[in-house]
Amino acid sequence: MSESNTDKLWGGRFSESTDAFVEAFTASVMFDRRLYRHDIQGSRAHARMLAHVGVLTDAECEAIVEGLDAILNDIEAGRFDWDIGLEDVHMNIEARLTARIGAVGKKLHTGRSRNDQVATDIRLWLREEIDHIRAELARARRGLLELAEREADTIMPGFTHLQVAMPVTFGHHLLAWYEMLARDSARLRDVRRRVNVMPLGAAALAGTTYPIDRAYAASLLGFDEVAANSLDAVSDRDFAIEFCAAAALIMTHLSRTSEEMILWSSAQFGFIELPDRFCTGSSIMPQKKNPDVPELLRGKAGRVNGDLITLLTLMKGQPLAYNKDNQEDKEPLFDAVDTVRGSLRAFADMVPAIEVKRERMRAAAMQGYATATDLADYLVRKGVAFRDAHEIVGKAVRRAIERDCDLSELELTELQAFSAAIDADVYAALTLEGSVAARAHYGGTAPDAVRARIRQARELLDNE
Amino acid sequence: MSESNTDKLWGGRFSESTDAFVEAFTASVMFDRRLYRHDIQGSRAHARMLAHVGVLTDAECEAIVEGLDAILNDIEAGRFDWDIGLEDVHMNIEARLTARIGAVGKKLHTGRSRNDQVATDIRLWLREEIDHIRAELARARRGLLELAEREADTIMPGFTHLQVAMPVTFGHHLLAWYEMLARDSARLRDVRRRVNVMPLGAAALAGTTYPIDRAYAASLLGFDEVAANSLDAVSDRDFAIEFCAAAALIMTHLSRTSEEMILWSSAQFGFIELPDRFCTGSSIMPQKKNPDVPELLRGKAGRVNGDLITLLTLMKGQPLAYNKDNQEDKEPLFDAVDTVRGSLRAFADMVPAIEVKRERMRAAAMQGYATATDLADYLVRKGVAFRDAHEIVGKAVRRAIERDCDLSELELTELQAFSAAIDADVYAALTLEGSVAARAHYGGTAPDAVRARIRQARELLDNE
Amino acid sequence: MSESNTDKLWGGRFSESTDAFVEAFTASVMFDRRLYRHDIQGSRAHARMLAHVGVLTDAECEAIVEGLDAILNDIEAGRFDWDIGLEDVHMNIEARLTARIGAVGKKLHTGRSRNDQVATDIRLWLREEIDHIRAELARARRGLLELAEREADTIMPGFTHLQVAMPVTFGHHLLAWYEMLARDSARLRDVRRRVNVMPLGAAALAGTTYPIDRAYAASLLGFDEVAANSLDAVSDRDFAIEFCAAAALIMTHLSRTSEEMILWSSAQFGFIELPDRFCTGSSIMPQKKNPDVPELLRGKAGRVNGDLITLLTLMKGQPLAYNKDNQEDKEPLFDAVDTVRGSLRAFADMVPAIEVKRERMRAAAMQGYATATDLADYLVRKGVAFRDAHEIVGKAVRRAIERDCDLSELELTELQAFSAAIDADVYAALTLEGSVAARAHYGGTAPDAVRARIRQARELLDNE
Amino acid sequence: MSESNTDKLWGGRFSESTDAFVEAFTASVMFDRRLYRHDIQGSRAHARMLAHVGVLTDAECEAIVEGLDAILNDIEAGRFDWDIGLEDVHMNIEARLTARIGAVGKKLHTGRSRNDQVATDIRLWLREEIDHIRAELARARRGLLELAEREADTIMPGFTHLQVAMPVTFGHHLLAWYEMLARDSARLRDVRRRVNVMPLGAAALAGTTYPIDRAYAASLLGFDEVAANSLDAVSDRDFAIEFCAAAALIMTHLSRTSEEMILWSSAQFGFIELPDRFCTGSSIMPQKKNPDVPELLRGKAGRVNGDLITLLTLMKGQPLAYNKDNQEDKEPLFDAVDTVRGSLRAFADMVPAIEVKRERMRAAAMQGYATATDLADYLVRKGVAFRDAHEIVGKAVRRAIERDCDLSELELTELQAFSAAIDADVYAALTLEGSVAARAHYGGTAPDAVRARIRQARELLDNE
Repeated sequence: MSESNTDKLWGGRFSESTDAFVEAFTASVMFDRRLYRHDIQGSRAHARMLAHVGVLTDAECEAIVEGLDAILNDIEAGRFDWDIGLEDVHMNIEARLTARIGAVGKKLHTGRSRNDQVATDIRLWLREEIDHIRAELARARRGLLELAEREADTIMPGFTHLQVAMPVTFGHHLLAWYEMLARDSARLRDVRRRVNVMPLGAAALAGTTYPIDRAYAASLLGFDEVAANSLDAVSDRDFAIEFCAAAALIMTHLSRTSEEMILWSSAQFGFIELPDRFCTGSSIMPQKKNPDVPELLRGKAGRVNGDLITLLTLMKGQPLAYNKDNQEDKEPLFDAVDTVRGSLRAFADMVPAIEVKRERMRAAAMQGYATATDLADYLVRKGVAFRDAHEIVGKAVRRAIERDCDLSELELTELQAFSAAIDADVYAALTLEGSVAARAHYGGTAPDAVRARIRQARELLDNE
Repeated sequence: MSESNTDKLWGGRFSESTDAFVEAFTASVMFDRRLYRHDIQGSRAHARMLAHVGVLTDAECEAIVEGLDAILNDIEAGRFDWDIGLEDVHMNIEARLTARIGAVGKKLHTGRSRNDQVATDIRLWLREEIDHIRAELARARRGLLELAEREADTIMPGFTHLQVAMPVTFGHHLLAWYEMLARDSARLRDVRRRVNVMPLGAAALAGTTYPIDRAYAASLLGFDEVAANSLDAVSDRDFAIEFCAAAALIMTHLSRTSEEMILWSSAQFGFIELPDRFCTGSSIMPQKKNPDVPELLRGKAGRVNGDLITLLTLMKGQPLAYNKDNQEDKEPLFDAVDTVRGSLRAFADMVPAIEVKRERMRAAAMQGYATATDLADYLVRKGVAFRDAHEIVGKAVRRAIERDCDLSELELTELQAFSAAIDADVYAALTLEGSVAARAHYGGTAPDAVRARIRQARELLDNE
Repeated sequence: MSESNTDKLWGGRFSESTDAFVEAFTASVMFDRRLYRHDIQGSRAHARMLAHVGVLTDAECEAIVEGLDAILNDIEAGRFDWDIGLEDVHMNIEARLTARIGAVGKKLHTGRSRNDQVATDIRLWLREEIDHIRAELARARRGLLELAEREADTIMPGFTHLQVAMPVTFGHHLLAWYEMLARDSARLRDVRRRVNVMPLGAAALAGTTYPIDRAYAASLLGFDEVAANSLDAVSDRDFAIEFCAAAALIMTHLSRTSEEMILWSSAQFGFIELPDRFCTGSSIMPQKKNPDVPELLRGKAGRVNGDLITLLTLMKGQPLAYNKDNQEDKEPLFDAVDTVRGSLRAFADMVPAIEVKRERMRAAAMQGYATATDLADYLVRKGVAFRDAHEIVGKAVRRAIERDCDLSELELTELQAFSAAIDADVYAALTLEGSVAARAHYGGTAPDAVRARIRQARELLDNE
Repeated sequence: MSESNTDKLWGGRFSESTDAFVEAFTASVMFDRRLYRHDIQGSRAHARMLAHVGVLTDAECEAIVEGLDAILNDIEAGRFDWDIGLEDVHMNIEARLTARIGAVGKKLHTGRSRNDQVATDIRLWLREEIDHIRAELARARRGLLELAEREADTIMPGFTHLQVAMPVTFGHHLLAWYEMLARDSARLRDVRRRVNVMPLGAAALAGTTYPIDRAYAASLLGFDEVAANSLDAVSDRDFAIEFCAAAALIMTHLSRTSEEMILWSSAQFGFIELPDRFCTGSSIMPQKKNPDVPELLRGKAGRVNGDLITLLTLMKGQPLAYNKDNQEDKEPLFDAVDTVRGSLRAFADMVPAIEVKRERMRAAAMQGYATATDLADYLVRKGVAFRDAHEIVGKAVRRAIERDCDLSELELTELQAFSAAIDADVYAALTLEGSVAARAHYGGTAPDAVRARIRQARELLDNE
């Protein structure tokens, strides 16, 4: 999905000779060079392991490690010319290593193959990205808890079917968002365990005849486990698919919360105002403010669904062990990581800066006879049968509609005309505050329940 | 995807009046009645909890529980008429309960709503199905370990790019399949934890004003956790999506292994023969045997990818809390469960019954100069430089091609003409047995490494 | 996705013996029996063709055709016992035919195979369903044109980014919906051409040695074309995928229009009210009306995306010619057809019955300074430079915001303070009516442009 | 999916200030600048139309057109600095235009908006790409016809279920590939009609108050039609989705044909050899040749499925008219176009260069008793009942298996022992040549039928 691919390679490619075209078509260095740091990290550990078991001398190992470090510096300083003729990141680095330190550079590849090397690189890279993403998730969650705390008493309408159903607190609503992201983080923690398994040592597909020490290499690289089967190690891309599925859920959550922010910042709802820098305006319509960032987040959700399907389709019918098809695993994975990471950053920056219009929220909650259920519960508590209670409430609401007022604005005598069971204490149930306060159990919308959950969530976050 | 829907409902529907059509279009009882057992299980626990906190008397509770049990018996005995006019499984059962035990039946719905009820039902049902699926996975894994043990010494060609690359043992190849299914089981264990969270008590969206005891209900129902936010509890379907993603990976694995079985049972490969009952034959071509079951497994993989996309698309833009869209969550989830469960059963039945044609496997491994890499490793161990070793091997293979024989069939003097470093011990490296035996490290293809992994895997399975 | 599958087959299956399980797992008659009418239609034509070329005698042909007709009657009268042991719809019907008319029944299968037979059946069935769907599309489009005509002068806010941008007419907005469905119909017309190609005669994969007359059979069955390659004819499922892609677009359109109906029927927008029978209400909240049908339509969109992915995944890696995988083509296709057909019927029933709240629409358009662009255009027409015009309008809007009034409610002198170019004729541009009337070109929102398009569209529909 | 995005923007982005991050996050110029040529093409036509209706003077128009041409030159010469602060391709070009020709540059935007502008750009670009893709399809189809002609008499086994079923000619098999691509081209022709509709004039969403002449602009730009509704014109992305669906089918075909090429070039099949430049080899295994290009084609199929899902998900729930979500439409569309175009080029280059191993194909056809069906047909023609014929053939095949020979190698007397109806003319039916020649009807595998279809197809191609 790259403009630069297009500009630099594809565009040109179509007028190239067949051979040059095929070279470009089958090469991966345009996108996999992104893995350079993890490729070097893996190579360094492999060299050390080879020295550890005596396949390399210490001097050879040092030459290789120093050579790799120098290459890393070159790349990061922009002094490395990537050569499409050398196909991929691995060959580019290896060729440069040999050019720099001589024939000993070739020895680095002893007992491994590009098949296990690339699988190792991706896992190292993805492990790191997962950590970045979980850090963004934690930042977003903390931001939500803060805002939820500030708005623990703010009353808004709770919707089902986009119809006003019951009053809830805005803090409670924000905690619903929090729960989504908390699950996302837990899910990624599980994914990480399955990512953090070392393929190195599987070589091309069957292992190697050199006396390698895989546990030693794994400890150098921080892997939790060593892959238990060499054929599986080079052909498995489950971890990439599993990550994309978790990423698709994160984006689904950002899309759902964005849908709400877009609704809420419409003139018709008017519940919130987004900070200017997340919006675009119009010079001739100064009141207009387009919620660009939430719209983009909503739009980007489709992208990760697409990446997930790309990977599932890719792996579906492949026989073992390694096939060239697998070269296509990287771009969707990179895209999913970039999309999620950027989207979470935008979300985490934006949410705490939301301006809440409490009166508009409250007014909307007042309009919808949102406490009708509370009146029914009140009547049942007073001994009225369930079925009768519903009928009484229906009549009361109809009266309030006629009078164009809220239930809580009906006179006591008016209410008592519908049922003798109604007393002055009914107003505690009918007010918005009474309604939310009455749902104080674990998980309920009452300000106290909200604050309790915030405390609990903070503790969990601190100990994560 | 139902023929009976079509026959009984849709088919007729198109000639129905608008009202009857809309009733059928919006009803869910045709598919959600499948949840009847878990709906009753949830209702029973809800009634007991209400009695526990004093909202129901013990007598009321008992009447309800007995009524529910009687309904369960009726349904399982086929004596329950599902009424499309009553929309869904919940209303059908509640209506019958009230018909049977009178007004007290209505009280069952105190402090809950269909929104938290349906979420509870699906989770209870899915939890049970996950357990069934993990049991099938365990059975399939044990079957693989047995077959792998039997074939630990069997040599076959290892392929990359569907080209013969190196010899491997068939037992090792089967263990690669084992690893896929082991990951699937671990993944489902993680999914189960996020499924096993109780929404009950969230009521419509905000919680309830009744003094419910959610922890008590959760303990009755075996839930590990209570959902911490009522809005999230009724709108969350992450667990269904996460399950489908795990299911899509299982089907990807069954598709990949099936692809191999189809290849292997072709006349061209001839590595295995599938048991007759998993195939269809032809009366006029008695030698022909179509690998129907592996083909179906491969075909069914697409289905679960589809279910996953259906659910991701479904949830993508929904604002909180409950929307009618969510009614569409059940059919794809049911389909994914049925597909995975049936497919795993077929796989677990079929694999141990595979007939292995060892000579064909061995002959194919012999053809491909599969030990060329071993010769190179041998030379390096003898002190030949990496680069030189490759050149020597290339020449030796070319000679073997000219002579139409395997590398191990070249005379020692012939080999020594390419390099003086070659000695009589070269044949240990060049034979298929020598090649696989030399890859004896953890995860390698050597028969000993295979047997070690089988032991380790059995232990893990026993302690799972 | 079938409850009955589950109840009747899968449920039982799991406790069945392996053989019975495999029989059920590989059989398709539970779902493909739905094709019985088209299977018989194809068989009748095949028999007539065989008689036409002399492979059957006329008497044999008549016996077969009569036998098939009798079976058709039996099936439609519910007197046909489908036997899972006979695998599929084809074998069930053929077995019954032979049972009924004796050995001559076997001759029906001369020169064909189940491979070309099933491909023919699906195409005949899908062709008919496309015609039904296009009829529903036409009905929905006519309904939209009627409503658009009624609301050609109704003014509502036009939104971008869910922010009020400019006034539009509601009739114009409905015509946008019309255009979507018009494209859908044109697309299905193109799909139909590629569906309506006859595979019959391809036999198993290579054609047949009998002197068949494929053109004759095609003319009997109303096929436009005869498939030009036998291998392709039995393996091609492009037409099913292409249909599902077109169906996914239809559902995308129904989802987008439903999203608008849901928004518009919220208390916050209040632009429309949906007829009761497409909603559910609440006994205790009589004012609440859940837009069930639009929510379901929105939800069902995911389903067809899923079916599309299922089919694409299914076909992706299959070698030619026929593989058992293809048995999995039917359920997603059936599901897509049923979903689209039912959804369009609901849409076509519902839309003309929408109650439009014109004052609420108008009031919302007034609020948003929707005519700011018109003021800028007015100034440019008066010779003010583009850039200056924008600045002037910005100031005017700010003033109106301060005064809490619309632009058209500012005094002329107030406006002239911002620019001397403003005259009394400015109000024609500033009113909502003036704004929409000024966009009278082809495709514009002016009532006259709307009516012109309605006339044009009706003519196109009449000639379709 | 771009490495360069990552390197240059995202990578840096994560350490940027919030404002700089949001600017980069919401900008599109990194990828949409690819549309520069079509943006300028559209702007030129818009300027000419404005002059045509008198909104611009001829001099203004000329200044604008010359300015745009100069910018086009700058861009193509690499002298244009894209500024991320100017968001997108449109603003970058407009800003440069004004910088270059002064305030008159601003007038270019009269009567249009970025909403209709971007929709116009994409359609102009996609129309051109479709033409390129259809040209590649035509080239691939011609290549297939040539190869099919060369191999019209070559006999290979025809497979069902990857089991040898009947002999077919390789030319016939290649024509099955041809049919797939012919349908693809026809499909794209239909897509092109729906792409080639002009949104320009829809302005932001409601049309414009300027006296524009949309038909005139359309004629300048070569559009077949003018979009009939302004709201629809700016929000519609059906054409992109429809293109991606057609592209997914193309890739499905390339994946299926690649699957066959991979199988056929395995040692086990050995039917073809791919030209070296589409493969990679191994220095130490000179006989090994990895079919890289077919593997990549197979792998790339998943990518376009992903792009399709991305776009379907993107549009699914959006209310009208334009939302920022739509900015996400470009990257998947670009990716689908690049993938299809590059893949078709590789396919069209590779297929005519395939080396066919006719003896291996023939030998494989001999092995499988592929003419058993022909023997049955022979017997039926001799008056043997269908059912009896099958039994006789079954016995004959079993005998041939015992004798390890083909059916055609059994003695006449041996055959006659199974049925007296067998005569010396049976061998014409039993030979591979006899078998394929007998399937000479339209669409059959006979060399003559193949050659007839090639002639017909060439004519169609010439008149396309």
